[in-house]
Parts: sequence; C-alpha cells; structure tokens
Amino acid sequence: MTKTRLEALSDGVIAIVMTILILEFKVPKLESSEGDWVLVKDFIHDLPVVLSYIISFLVLIVWWMSHHQLFHGAEYMDRKTIILNGIFLMFIAFIPYPTALMGEYPSLRFPSILYGIIGLLCGGSYYGLYHHILNKNAGHPFNASGNALSFKNTWLHLTVYIIAIGIAFVSPYISIAVYAAVPIYFIVKKNG
Amino acid sequence: MTKTRLEALSDGVIAIVMTILILEFKVPKLESSEGDWVLVKDFIHDLPVVLSYIISFLVLIVWWMSHHQLFHGAEYMDRKTIILNGIFLMFIAFIPYPTALMGEYPSLRFPSILYGIIGLLCGGSYYGLYHHILNKNAGHPFNASGNALSFKNTWLHLTVYIIAIGIAFVSPYISIAVYAAVPIYFIVKKNG
Amino acid sequence: MTKTRLEALSDGVIAIVMTILILEFKVPKLESSEGDWVLVKDFIHDLPVVLSYIISFLVLIVWWMSHHQLFHGAEYMDRKTIILNGIFLMFIAFIPYPTALMGEYPSLRFPSILYGIIGLLCGGSYYGLYHHILNKNAGHPFNASGNALSFKNTWLHLTVYIIAIGIAFVSPYISIAVYAAVPIYFIVKKNG
Amino acid sequence: MTKTRLEALSDGVIAIVMTILILEFKVPKLESSEGDWVLVKDFIHDLPVVLSYIISFLVLIVWWMSHHQLFHGAEYMDRKTIILNGIFLMFIAFIPYPTALMGEYPSLRFPSILYGIIGLLCGGSYYGLYHHILNKNAGHPFNASGNALSFKNTWLHLTVYIIAIGIAFVSPYISIAVYAAVPIYFIVKKNG
Repeated sequence: MTKTRLEALSDGVIAIVMTILILEFKVPKLESSEGDWVLVKDFIHDLPVVLSYIISFLVLIVWWMSHHQLFHGAEYMDRKTIILNGIFLMFIAFIPYPTALMGEYPSLRFPSILYGIIGLLCGGSYYGLYHHILNKNAGHPFNASGNALSFKNTWLHLTVYIIAIGIAFVSPYISIAVYAAVPIYFIVKKNG
Repeated sequence: MTKTRLEALSDGVIAIVMTILILEFKVPKLESSEGDWVLVKDFIHDLPVVLSYIISFLVLIVWWMSHHQLFHGAEYMDRKTIILNGIFLMFIAFIPYPTALMGEYPSLRFPSILYGIIGLLCGGSYYGLYHHILNKNAGHPFNASGNALSFKNTWLHLTVYIIAIGIAFVSPYISIAVYAAVPIYFIVKKNG
Repeated sequence: MTKTRLEALSDGVIAIVMTILILEFKVPKLESSEGDWVLVKDFIHDLPVVLSYIISFLVLIVWWMSHHQLFHGAEYMDRKTIILNGIFLMFIAFIPYPTALMGEYPSLRFPSILYGIIGLLCGGSYYGLYHHILNKNAGHPFNASGNALSFKNTWLHLTVYIIAIGIAFVSPYISIAVYAAVPIYFIVKKNG
Repeated sequence: MTKTRLEALSDGVIAIVMTILILEFKVPKLESSEGDWVLVKDFIHDLPVVLSYIISFLVLIVWWMSHHQLFHGAEYMDRKTIILNGIFLMFIAFIPYPTALMGEYPSLRFPSILYGIIGLLCGGSYYGLYHHILNKNAGHPFNASGNALSFKNTWLHLTVYIIAIGIAFVSPYISIAVYAAVPIYFIVKKNG
C-alpha cells in the first residue's frame, strides 16, 4: 500500500515537471504590422529553449525509468524511504529552473554549471534512496546484477556530471552536449 | 506493474496538458473607468483562443482514448516501451504552445503549420510505440481487428495532417477547420 | 481497467484545476520604502480572489464527489463514456478563468454571468455522462434511489444556476452568494 | 474503492503543490551587455526564495506522510471524509502563496504571520479529518498507539505554529527558523 501511493506521488511530481518545462516557451506579442516572419524568427530564436527542454525531458524519462526499476524490485518500505524519496523529488522539481536558464542563455557559463549542480543533487539523493532501499530489502529476491549495474550507473552519472560542470567553466556548449549525451547513452544502451 | 505506473505517468502528463491549455486565457486589467463591456469585448476577442483550446482538448481526448486502447490490449512491456512512450508524451507536452499561438494569431500561417508539425510528431511517435507494443505482444490474444483499424487510423491521421500543413500555406482557416474535423471524426465514428 | 484509468485521468484534471485556481494570487512587487502595511493592504484587496477561489474549490469537491459516486456504482464503460467524460472535464478545466475574473471584478456583471454559464455547461455535460452511464448499466445492481436523488440534484443544480445568471444582471453580489450557497448546500445535506 | 480515488486526488493535489512552489523562481531578463555575474547575483538574491521553497517542500513531505499513515490505517470512508479531506487539500493548495511571499520579503512580518496562519488552517483541518476517520473506524484493528502519537503530533504542530506566529511580530527570521525546524523535527525523530 505504502509503495502504491509513494509511486503515485513520484509519478505525479515527475509528470508535472515534464510538462511545466515547456511553459517557459511563451507566445510572442506581435505589432499589427508584423506577421509570420516575426513568429518564425521568434521561434528560431527560441530553439535553444526547445533543445534544452528536450534534454531535460530525456533526463526525466531516464530518472523515471530508474525509479520505476528500483521500486519494482523493492518490497519493504518505511518512513525513511518516504523521506529520501521526497528529497529526491525536491531536486527533480528544481530541474525546470536551470533548464529555462540554459535555454535562454546557452552561451553563458552559470546556467550550465547550475544545471550540473542540480543534476548532481538529483543523482546524490537518488543514490541515498537506492542505498536505503537495497539495505531494507537485503536478502530478498532482489535482482542483484541489476542493482550492481544501477550502482555503477549512478556513479557514472555523478562522475560525468562533475566533469561536465568543470567543462562548463571553459565551454558551456560542450557541457550542454555532455548533458544531452548522458540520457541518450542510458536510452540506447541495452542493459539497465 | 510496469504497465500500471506507465499508464499513471501517461495519464498524469495528458491531464496536465489538458488543463494548462486554458492557462493562456488571462484576466484583463481594467482601467477604473472601464466596466462590463470591456470584459465582454476582451472575451469575444479571445474566442479564437477558446476555440483553439477546444480543438486541442478534443485531440487530447482522442490520443488518450487510443493510448488507453493500446495499453489495455498489451501484456508485455519493456525498457523500449518506456522510452517510446516517453517520446510520445514529450510531443504531447508540446501541444499547448502551437495551440496558444494558433488561438492568438489564427489568420497567420506559421501557427497552423507548427500545429500540424507537432501533430505529425505525436502521430509518428505514437506509430513507433504502437508498432513496438504490437511486436512485443505478437501471438497473444490481442484484438487483431482493432489493431488493424488503429494502424489505419494512425496512417489516416498522418496523411490528413500532412495535407492540413499544405493547406495552411494557402489558408490557415481551412487548415484549422481540418484540425478540428480530425478529432470530431474519431469521436463520432462507431468503430475505434 | 478502463474504469481505473478513466478515474485516474479525471482525478488528475480535477486535482490540477483545484490547485491552479490559486495561482492567480500573485506576490506584489514592493518599492524599497514600502513594508508590511502595503502587503496587508494588497492582501485585503485580494480577498475577493480568495473567496472566489474557495467557492470554486467547494464546487470542485462536490463535482468530484458526484463523479466518484457515479463511477463507483457503474460497471460497464465504453468509448462514449470516455468521450462524454472528456467533455465534462473540458468544462471543468474552464472553471479557473471565470473564477479569477469574478475574484478580480466582483462588482461587475459579466464575470458572474460567465461563471454561471460555465457552471451550466459542467452541469449539462455531467447530466449527459450520467444519463449514458445509467443506460449502459441498466438492470445492474446500481443504487436506484441514489441515482434518482442525483438526477434531482443535477436538475436542481441547473435550475439554480439559470436563476443565478438572471440575478447576475441585476446584482452580481447576490449571484455570487448563490454560487457559494450551492456547494455548501450539497456539502451539509445528509443524503447525496 | 472510495479510498483509492480519495488517495489519488490527495496525491495529485500534494504533488502539484510541491511542484508549482518552484515556479515563482523566474529566469531574469539580461541586457546584452550583462553576463554570468548578473545571473549569479540574481540567483544569490533569490536564495531566500529557494530556502522558503525547501521549507514548504519538507512541510509537504511531512503532511503527505501523515496523510498516508492516516488513510493506511483506516478502513471505512464516507461522504464526510471526502469533504473534510477536500477542505484539508484546499488549505494545502494555499501554501504556495505565503511561501512565495516569505521568500520574496523574508525581513517583513506579514509573510511569516500568513505562513503561520495557513499552517494552522492545514493543521486544524487535518485534525478534523483525523478525528472523523478515527471515530468512523473505532473498534477496528487501528494502530492505537500510533494514533495517540499522531494526535500528540497534531497538537504539537498547532501549538508551535501559534508560538511562531507570535514570534513573527517581533522577528520574522526566528519565526522562519521555527517553520523550518518543525518538518525537520518530524523527519529526524524515530516514531511517527
């Protein structure tokens, strides 16, 4: 029972974050003399926002997939699971801000650095949640190899994000490319 | 289990998109000398936004109905189902932007073209999801005639949207009429 | 299965509408010389918005309660149920706009009239949904007296709203009082 | 059945409130001559908003945890449960406004006072819901000690909030510290 509602709350938060990401994308106000070309120019000018949105959407798909796999295997939940899951969701809910910032100012360094920091906080809090659920369910028929892989994935995630933050100080564009590459890697690879 | 949460995430995203569509509809700021007639005039001026909202709401009802039918029949889900479903939801989440744009500037061509493109992306990603779920569940007591029909529907959807995009270059109003006709057709016809 | 997802979609839309109602309530921008009293004055000035929000929240609780009761008793669902339910949800999603308008301009007539019209559309579409579900489940152990009552309630709702719209042309404040009285009546009375 | 949908509606509202809290955090508009440092300065300037958001997120985690525990133990639900739960959710949905106000003007007294009042209304309506569910399920194998504890918690919550409102008249910062301490206390303590 606990699990069902905890999953519902998590699905709710992730679904909302996925959807409000795009709200930053505003309809421009045209002068009466302006027409289609102004809309097209505005749209092209906003393409980095769209790209930034797509990156974060893919990131959220991967987080949801990991969360789903983790809770699917788990059987026992407690108070601490609720709290650690809540903290993870809190950092997930932060994602729209650096996403919008990075889309608006892709050439600046601060947006890419902040995006990386939020990503690290998501990864770190997920690691804590993961660790706790594994301990809580130790000895149960939990898919051990899958867990080993997921631990590896979490560390991989954290390491790549730290590197991407470092790169952001030099070139935000390369850093954004790394952020885009992470979810694509997890999406295309065979084993979870 | 996978199916339940995947459906919950999809229901969440579609419910949010349905609801935020109308947020574009803002309360006007009146001068102290202005009264009811300014509100009425503002409301009438915004009627294309309402109409555009209603079209997209009907489109979303049809998408939800198709998604529901597809997952209802399916039994086996995998990693790829999650990803393809996520990409479909991403395009669904794009719908509010061209909806607002089309409501604000119904006489311009770009909004209708963009609305059609997003519709094509929804249709194309749905087709991919459909194809994958059908392959994954091949040989199972899946309603074959329903599936054949749905494939036909998907192709019909894609073809009509391509034509509507073409029409939008000439007359956006006819194009909008086509976008309105598509969900009404799927709603009134007998077999899904 | 159909029922579960249809309920989930409905719960999602109603939960979102309940929550975005209050988003209209904005934090004021203070000048550096201004302090607590400006915030208090702004808050008092916005109290009609809060009141308008509370009315709509109560209305939504009653709608949710009715919807819940209706689907609880029903067993068979079809394509048409999905569509009629979708149309009901569409009018529900319209509620925030007249709510905000009525809160902002409670002394004007148009907001109260529009609020009544949206209420009528919710009531009318609910009546359609109700009628269809009852026909679809005829002969089944459906709580007949409860249904008779609910039909009476729906007609009561529609009649009172038509009267309230008429009153709004004369005095919007009395009309708002009627809108507030309707959900309170359904909440305090014993039998649903 | 009633319970499942009531939980779903509550999870939906709480998930949305958790997520829209952060929407107040807007991307700044830079002049073309401005760069990273303006973004950093803007971010630092907005840190109280982030802090205020984190406090409310923790508060919401604790509310959700309490709600979950309460409904987990309960078996019988009725019309009155729906209504009392709806009123509780209404006050929960108010949380984003004082949160944003407190984040924007942490040195003023009104935001902290209003935050406390909303907290009291959440606590009071939760107490009513709690009381009703306990009466409704009296004599059933409900965890009696857990309930006694939760009653104690509810009273503790109400008392501390009244004190914090009093403190806000003297020092809003100490009051905010108390609001932050409450969820942290409930999160770190062993027994619920």
